[in-house]
Amino acid sequence: MPRIPADQLISNLTALFAAEHVPIGRARRLAELFTQASADGVWSHGVHRVPALLALLRGNANYDTQSEPRLIATFGALQRYDGLAGLGPLNAEFCIDRAMELADANGIGCVALRNTRHWGRPGNCGWRAAEKGFLAICWTNTPPNMPAWGEGVATPALGNNPIVFAAPGKDGEHLVLDMALSQFSFGKMDTHRAENRPLPVPGGIDASGAATTDAAAILSGGLPWPIGFWKGAGLAMLLDAFAAILSDGADTQSLILVEDDLGISQVFVAIQPNRLGGRAASERTREIIQRFALVSAQSRYPGQAALAHRRQSEIEGVYVREDVWAKLAGEDQT
Amino acid sequence: MPRIPADQLISNLTALFAAEHVPIGRARRLAELFTQASADGVWSHGVHRVPALLALLRGNANYDTQSEPRLIATFGALQRYDGLAGLGPLNAEFCIDRAMELADANGIGCVALRNTRHWGRPGNCGWRAAEKGFLAICWTNTPPNMPAWGEGVATPALGNNPIVFAAPGKDGEHLVLDMALSQFSFGKMDTHRAENRPLPVPGGIDASGAATTDAAAILSGGLPWPIGFWKGAGLAMLLDAFAAILSDGADTQSLILVEDDLGISQVFVAIQPNRLGGRAASERTREIIQRFALVSAQSRYPGQAALAHRRQSEIEGVYVREDVWAKLAGEDQT
Repeated sequence: MPRIPADQLISNLTALFAAEHVPIGRARRLAELFTQASADGVWSHGVHRVPALLALLRGNANYDTQSEPRLIATFGALQRYDGLAGLGPLNAEFCIDRAMELADANGIGCVALRNTRHWGRPGNCGWRAAEKGFLAICWTNTPPNMPAWGEGVATPALGNNPIVFAAPGKDGEHLVLDMALSQFSFGKMDTHRAENRPLPVPGGIDASGAATTDAAAILSGGLPWPIGFWKGAGLAMLLDAFAAILSDGADTQSLILVEDDLGISQVFVAIQPNRLGGRAASERTREIIQRFALVSAQSRYPGQAALAHRRQSEIEGVYVREDVWAKLAGEDQT
Repeated sequence: MPRIPADQLISNLTALFAAEHVPIGRARRLAELFTQASADGVWSHGVHRVPALLALLRGNANYDTQSEPRLIATFGALQRYDGLAGLGPLNAEFCIDRAMELADANGIGCVALRNTRHWGRPGNCGWRAAEKGFLAICWTNTPPNMPAWGEGVATPALGNNPIVFAAPGKDGEHLVLDMALSQFSFGKMDTHRAENRPLPVPGGIDASGAATTDAAAILSGGLPWPIGFWKGAGLAMLLDAFAAILSDGADTQSLILVEDDLGISQVFVAIQPNRLGGRAASERTREIIQRFALVSAQSRYPGQAALAHRRQSEIEGVYVREDVWAKLAGEDQT
């Protein structure tokens, strides 16, 4: 289990992205985001994704690695951008930053982004907003990858549209919920399949339509279930409608399964909570976390695990799977 | 199964509320909201709730039935109100209306409300916003009524914080998701208990901590589970934090179980989607609904069942349980 110092990982990844014609400043930020996701224990959306992204950049001369999202329209505290099919994680960061600017001026701001790509770890935007003292809600649609709810329904009709809620606390102890609307994210199912471990609760259906805890069966011809069955199915549909309407972009049904989720739509809402008087947001968040710990000593609050991983990674280095690291370290020297 | 014409129900309920010192205009609006919930098939949050509310008004001389929420603070498109422990459904309607005004001026608007009471059917606000062409997200916190997720955890730590998402369509065919974060709402579990029917999937734990499909066991000494287990638990915590922070009001842990959820906090977000150019929101919603029907013929979109019930109720009258109707019709004549 190799653990690499974050600085080394970042400079390594920066060089790899730069070699694929990503401008150096953008290459470095991209490297930082993937490294941070791994440092926070979200390996499925961290450095482990980098080889696939590098391959995609290498194989696609038209991939726009240079541009920021282009402003399409503004009305008050609401903005619409086109992501120009550019780098998803940087597009998303651009948009949460615009949303925070809008919130600073208007109390609340909303940015919708169309024609973007996979944003990496969804939580990136939430952690960034919380660190700056904002509340945030961000979500993305995806190509169809979940069934709707109903007897015998087994057609992919809905995206598992990951969503993030963030509330700023103190000393890095923020509330950050980062979840896909499938009971298990595809990254989590990948991990269970690789480790041949059953899921703790049924996570979807196999190719025959039967409920299963076997991640491999869900990933190979089956489909994952929405959280809360019909409830998560409904939530997925509404998040998709919001994203498509606000961005004037693609909805789930008009997306096809392509690499890097090309063409997806996203929404970024930021709220500035500290201009209304009353108790400070960070005080309330800390209080809510502390009271939760008192009544639920065995449970963790959303964001707690990421923070624990981060602190461990700062001391011990960032975990990268051996085969991935061999590939990345090797490629750096070619 | 008595079905009462909506007009008759409304005038009957209006008189009953007015007799409890609710000003006549407010009494009528309250009557309309409860009647509409029943007409839409949301009986647990419709006319069936009225006897309990009347009893509460009768037994509580200090219940402020007169006042609208009081403005505490404004910053841009963000407002905070105090509900003055007044009538929950009217407080909520007041706030979604303010949020829509803010959205009309700023693209997006957010109103936070503290010190309010049970808002009746959560979907009221969503249907109202969709009917007027707005996107909306509204939620409430509740006193602790769900456990956090964890081995052996059986203490109420989280609220099942109902949330509503609405997107405007055409001809009444809006997308309106109205859901509690427990796998089953308390209203739904009440119904299953009354009809002695098992829940279709395990809905929580019984008094011994074992998973169960027996609504009675969950309601008597057990606890309902969050949708998606740990995911819904996390979502409940974040919605509570947002509501408490933005309203500078009570969070779930500081609420106690009292009648009518006295003291709860709520959030109302409205977005005006049609000032950015591009395709009209209602066209996109219709298209999403139509495509969904093509791939998921057996499934219903969020809001579809309510609309079907509404159309039936317009023709056949509004269903009210016999014992409730006897009580309401009788009380009217005293």
